[in-house]
Amino acid sequence: MASARPENTDNRRGLDRRVTIPGDFALTGGQALPALEIAYETYGDLNADASNAILICHALTMDQYVAGHNPRTGKPGWWPRLVGPGKPIDPDRHFIICSNVLGGCNGTTGPGNVNPLTNQHYAMTFPVITIRDMVNAQAALLDHLGIETLAAVVGGSMGGMQALDWAVAHPHRVRSVVAIATAARHSAQNIAFHEVGRQAIMADPNWSGGAYPLDKQPVAGLAVARMAAHITYLSEEGLTEKFGRRLQDRDTPGSPQPGFGFDAEFQVESYLRHQGLSFTQRFDANSYLYITRAMDYFDLGAPHDGVLAKAFAGTKTRFALVSFTSDWLYPTAESRRIVRALNAAGAAVSFVELESPFGHDAFLLDAPEMIRVVDGFLRAGT
Amino acid sequence: MASARPENTDNRRGLDRRVTIPGDFALTGGQALPALEIAYETYGDLNADASNAILICHALTMDQYVAGHNPRTGKPGWWPRLVGPGKPIDPDRHFIICSNVLGGCNGTTGPGNVNPLTNQHYAMTFPVITIRDMVNAQAALLDHLGIETLAAVVGGSMGGMQALDWAVAHPHRVRSVVAIATAARHSAQNIAFHEVGRQAIMADPNWSGGAYPLDKQPVAGLAVARMAAHITYLSEEGLTEKFGRRLQDRDTPGSPQPGFGFDAEFQVESYLRHQGLSFTQRFDANSYLYITRAMDYFDLGAPHDGVLAKAFAGTKTRFALVSFTSDWLYPTAESRRIVRALNAAGAAVSFVELESPFGHDAFLLDAPEMIRVVDGFLRAGT
Repeated sequence: MASARPENTDNRRGLDRRVTIPGDFALTGGQALPALEIAYETYGDLNADASNAILICHALTMDQYVAGHNPRTGKPGWWPRLVGPGKPIDPDRHFIICSNVLGGCNGTTGPGNVNPLTNQHYAMTFPVITIRDMVNAQAALLDHLGIETLAAVVGGSMGGMQALDWAVAHPHRVRSVVAIATAARHSAQNIAFHEVGRQAIMADPNWSGGAYPLDKQPVAGLAVARMAAHITYLSEEGLTEKFGRRLQDRDTPGSPQPGFGFDAEFQVESYLRHQGLSFTQRFDANSYLYITRAMDYFDLGAPHDGVLAKAFAGTKTRFALVSFTSDWLYPTAESRRIVRALNAAGAAVSFVELESPFGHDAFLLDAPEMIRVVDGFLRAGT
Repeated sequence: MASARPENTDNRRGLDRRVTIPGDFALTGGQALPALEIAYETYGDLNADASNAILICHALTMDQYVAGHNPRTGKPGWWPRLVGPGKPIDPDRHFIICSNVLGGCNGTTGPGNVNPLTNQHYAMTFPVITIRDMVNAQAALLDHLGIETLAAVVGGSMGGMQALDWAVAHPHRVRSVVAIATAARHSAQNIAFHEVGRQAIMADPNWSGGAYPLDKQPVAGLAVARMAAHITYLSEEGLTEKFGRRLQDRDTPGSPQPGFGFDAEFQVESYLRHQGLSFTQRFDANSYLYITRAMDYFDLGAPHDGVLAKAFAGTKTRFALVSFTSDWLYPTAESRRIVRALNAAGAAVSFVELESPFGHDAFLLDAPEMIRVVDGFLRAGT
């Protein structure tokens, strides 16, 4: 399938590629998309027996630019410590694929796309999607690329959900799964936080039932949604260490005096406001609704009467799970639950809980132990 | 001071009383209110030597109707297990006082009141207030009632902050303090969640810079603020136990199918939406801004270079602190910090962490151990 390989003059940089998958794309909910465009990046070259492909799945607000240079932001990719030359996932050894998820807003079909049947933006006529639908879209991309089997699927957070689901939906196409800071189902508290975000978006009059012009989205609501979510990505300990009760622009020696007002008085407020506002410049509100909804529906054990082990029955895939001590969004207990289910299913599984004060976001930050664990696991399997 | 006693034909019921404190009321931030009205309830009778008065301080969204019947909601008061005939705080033994906090929206002067100097609603011209200002307003009420010394100040959550601050601001007027599920300062995470709520309110166009007509408040934004806050009042464990991933209106035997939509699909969503919406019927958005701000500014150790023990130096007040295992809003660590400071200050202090799956809200729910602890502490001190 050499024809599908990237014509890449610099195989470490990514190509900003798109592909249109022909035919209807069937969804879990019973509907189908009349067209599926996938935006993706590849790094490195597929080897002769197409055995060195690694799929990286991104989290809720990330994109396909996992490594190299992100042409939209002008910044480096989002997982530079794990992916890149000399890193555990290495374009000199692996053919690395990362695609924008179904429902996303970075090139893959989502609510911001035009429905070819109506020539209108989908907006809220876009069908509700699931993590499984995201995985199936990635499988269609692999078909297009001529890759039958993945050496590994790797992801953190929602990316970890996709990685786990790959082993359930397409067990014969995945040799190894690395699932970091993730869960096999969304908890009531996870759903609750997402619902706050969705309600914040929908409460913004600019949302207009989802039919906003793409250049005039519900910025205020989306910013509030991001602020609420962002708190869940950090730990109480991390917030205290980073900001404590320090006052904005008054962190000088002596006795800083509060301003007694509603401006961003504390540094943590200023930080959150910035996080909220900058997010609205790179993300679409309707995509946020659809992707959070997909995560809420995620429950790998549900089709098996809640017995997660049955979802993995007969698996030949190897698994590595990593959790972080201060992650309260997808806490270690959820990873342990997955490990128990995998053990019950007779799967090969390694698991480590790593010390970190940085909460859920730890998987994106400097985590040398995580890098070593993933490196060792991938090398042992290839 | 018999003249100040309530003329109460049924001293267990409360009286829906108001008092206007004469003169300017000076605030921590340097401004003053030209008028201070306090709405309060009393239960029981003040004894001859005025030694049986107990002040109860309410939490962020509560009111003065701690016991008996709330004429506004038609429901019982908010702390019936602790306050009432035969309870640890008993109108047959105590003269019980509970006033709506300064900045509130249940009768005490707040941003919804008319500024007598301008004949306009204060709205956002209301000065920013602090927990100390709330305490000083209560002290003015006690002066009016002819009560020099309180047998006890009792409160949970923000009520606990006021109770602690009473011992710092007016040490000679408080014999005992009971502070439940509280903290001596707001953490970065606490501030962050409040800021999300404030931004949600301010993002609502109906907020109109705070100048909304009182019958047309920013319902959508206030509801989102309440939803976000409400998650912090419950534990992950409690949410899972109460709702899990159960679907709304589909919790029937067999295999409930998700609806694949954005309606309140999960029970936890329906519950949160109800909590948000019903809150807007009983609370004012601007009051929410001012009271959350007061909590964020709360840091008892701040005027003493962060050494909390110095705030309590020389105190003769007895203290009882109670925390709950699953309270992640004001976790046990914060109570322990207060206890250590009180020990260092040589204060008499008892502390217990109680097992509960109900998170922060545990202090309002059925907590028999808490009732016993408070009863024992109050009886030993009187």
